[in-house]
Amino acid sequence: MPRNAQIVLDNRPQGAATEGNFRLITTDTPPLTDGQVLVRHHYLSLDPYMRGRMNEGKSYAACQPLGEVMIGGTVGEVVESRHPRFIAGDKVVGMGGWQEYSVVDGNAPGLLRKVEGGPVPLSYYLGAVGMPGVTAWYGLTQIIAPKAGETVTVSAATGAVGSAFAALAKARGCRVVGIAGGPEKCRYATEELGFDACIDHRQHTDVKSMSRALKESCPDGIDGHFENVGGTILDAVLLRANAFARVALCGMIAGYDGQPLPMLNPALMLINRMRVEGFIVSEHMQLWPQALQELAALVVAGTLHPRESIAQGLASAPAAFIGLLHGKNMGKQLVQLV
Amino acid sequence: MPRNAQIVLDNRPQGAATEGNFRLITTDTPPLTDGQVLVRHHYLSLDPYMRGRMNEGKSYAACQPLGEVMIGGTVGEVVESRHPRFIAGDKVVGMGGWQEYSVVDGNAPGLLRKVEGGPVPLSYYLGAVGMPGVTAWYGLTQIIAPKAGETVTVSAATGAVGSAFAALAKARGCRVVGIAGGPEKCRYATEELGFDACIDHRQHTDVKSMSRALKESCPDGIDGHFENVGGTILDAVLLRANAFARVALCGMIAGYDGQPLPMLNPALMLINRMRVEGFIVSEHMQLWPQALQELAALVVAGTLHPRESIAQGLASAPAAFIGLLHGKNMGKQLVQLV
Repeated sequence: MPRNAQIVLDNRPQGAATEGNFRLITTDTPPLTDGQVLVRHHYLSLDPYMRGRMNEGKSYAACQPLGEVMIGGTVGEVVESRHPRFIAGDKVVGMGGWQEYSVVDGNAPGLLRKVEGGPVPLSYYLGAVGMPGVTAWYGLTQIIAPKAGETVTVSAATGAVGSAFAALAKARGCRVVGIAGGPEKCRYATEELGFDACIDHRQHTDVKSMSRALKESCPDGIDGHFENVGGTILDAVLLRANAFARVALCGMIAGYDGQPLPMLNPALMLINRMRVEGFIVSEHMQLWPQALQELAALVVAGTLHPRESIAQGLASAPAAFIGLLHGKNMGKQLVQLV
Repeated sequence: MPRNAQIVLDNRPQGAATEGNFRLITTDTPPLTDGQVLVRHHYLSLDPYMRGRMNEGKSYAACQPLGEVMIGGTVGEVVESRHPRFIAGDKVVGMGGWQEYSVVDGNAPGLLRKVEGGPVPLSYYLGAVGMPGVTAWYGLTQIIAPKAGETVTVSAATGAVGSAFAALAKARGCRVVGIAGGPEKCRYATEELGFDACIDHRQHTDVKSMSRALKESCPDGIDGHFENVGGTILDAVLLRANAFARVALCGMIAGYDGQPLPMLNPALMLINRMRVEGFIVSEHMQLWPQALQELAALVVAGTLHPRESIAQGLASAPAAFIGLLHGKNMGKQLVQLV
């Protein structure tokens, strides 16, 4: 059996996460027992949710145990199988974690999913045609449910979720306005991702300024908003929301000291008769096939072709992850392992 | 034609509303033209929403113009009709305002609604079987949509909305917990209105204390909440909300200085995968018949029989209204005019 490089959580962040929170180890992959599959990972996905798992304390998700391999989505190839549904050479998506190989129970429902090679690049199954894409699809279609001609907005617009959101919203005839950090990301949003406009939040750091920028980019107001960030952006969106606007809550930051960040004027949810709904995409697995089918079709049609930021080799994962948390990536952040 | 006593808004509140904001005048009722109906009001409804109308400035509702008769729901009797659908003696509910008589366009849809006399007391059409009752019905059935066995909570529990909410929620097999101001109201809630428990918010003025009280009264957490107040109560409810909890936003106060009152930890809406929805019952007229039918049936069955606070004579309306804003009423606040 091959040797396996792994990255474990060594200690919990005191404030900001650092590379020192992680540790690289090497182990032997254990021999397979009946029903198991050995997968060699080609790409590891790095996602913001991982930061939340690094903390102790109550959230909706289990916290990442110390000394164990970091959780993470992976796409790769079956190298050995003792399960009748899988054979060597199958391309598979799973939650293999920050390591080169994983041994997976082929019977566990949803743990390992076979994917087509072909027109969709393998790495896209971790982004546009994977969890981030389905996240955008769920928030847009199940919560915002826009009509053609409505205006929808999204924060973290150039990330894996935001780029899929743009393509899905354009396909429904919406005006779609992004919010991203810096002129380069905003250019990328409008020139490559199909956004009708993009607001640089670094130029609008307070609610009043952001609200003015939204007014300019959304002259007919905001009918739907997909929130990946929270704080100032959400406060400003509430000021520009139309009657009966819908907000899909996908990500909410805390304040700089880890304290909760308040919503300045929640009465706007009533004044605008809004619906604000939080969700976690993994709780809606029954909708994934439908979502993945539409996302794959958009990729094949060429209307969804986001960039990827690819770090090389497992050892580069901690630095790439810290960079992601600081918004240094352009598009989906991956680590290539093969 | 009879003389008509009227109360107009004389000047806008500087801070708290006072009796001095109103002025009593007397006019002649004008002769009817074709299609018009003259109604003598038996009861005037006093409701918290009127306070919002007294301010200038943007809200979802038009502000009350100075020098014009205060807006308000009324129930009364047709005394003269030049409309084929109405005859003298008909009992009617409408928005007659703070005055003894009103002249109504019988053709305007929804302006004047005939009601039965009989088992439902006439005054109840302004409360339990009127706008407040339908408000409770809409929030409970269309937003919270509870399953039997779930726990639902409501603030301003002993008001016209809260009392209807309790009866409707009990009819659906819920545990229903109220939040009200003072031991007398809390006793009334549990002994007469059917609440399983009631929390005195005067004993729990901060989020931590209110959250502890909610934990005690809602040992299985909160599945649905009807918000008439906002602020500390809503912050505490978010801390006790179960996964997939629903919040119907019906009323939200501002802070003491008129500034918006923030929501302390909006990330809880995501962490708990909640749905928070604001609504105005007058925007859902198509559901009123269904709601009124259920509410009337509960009244006739005896499970919905809230108290009323009845002030005598139009001149008593301003003082009664200020009292309502300070929570001095017990049950629906009315002014008897006949």
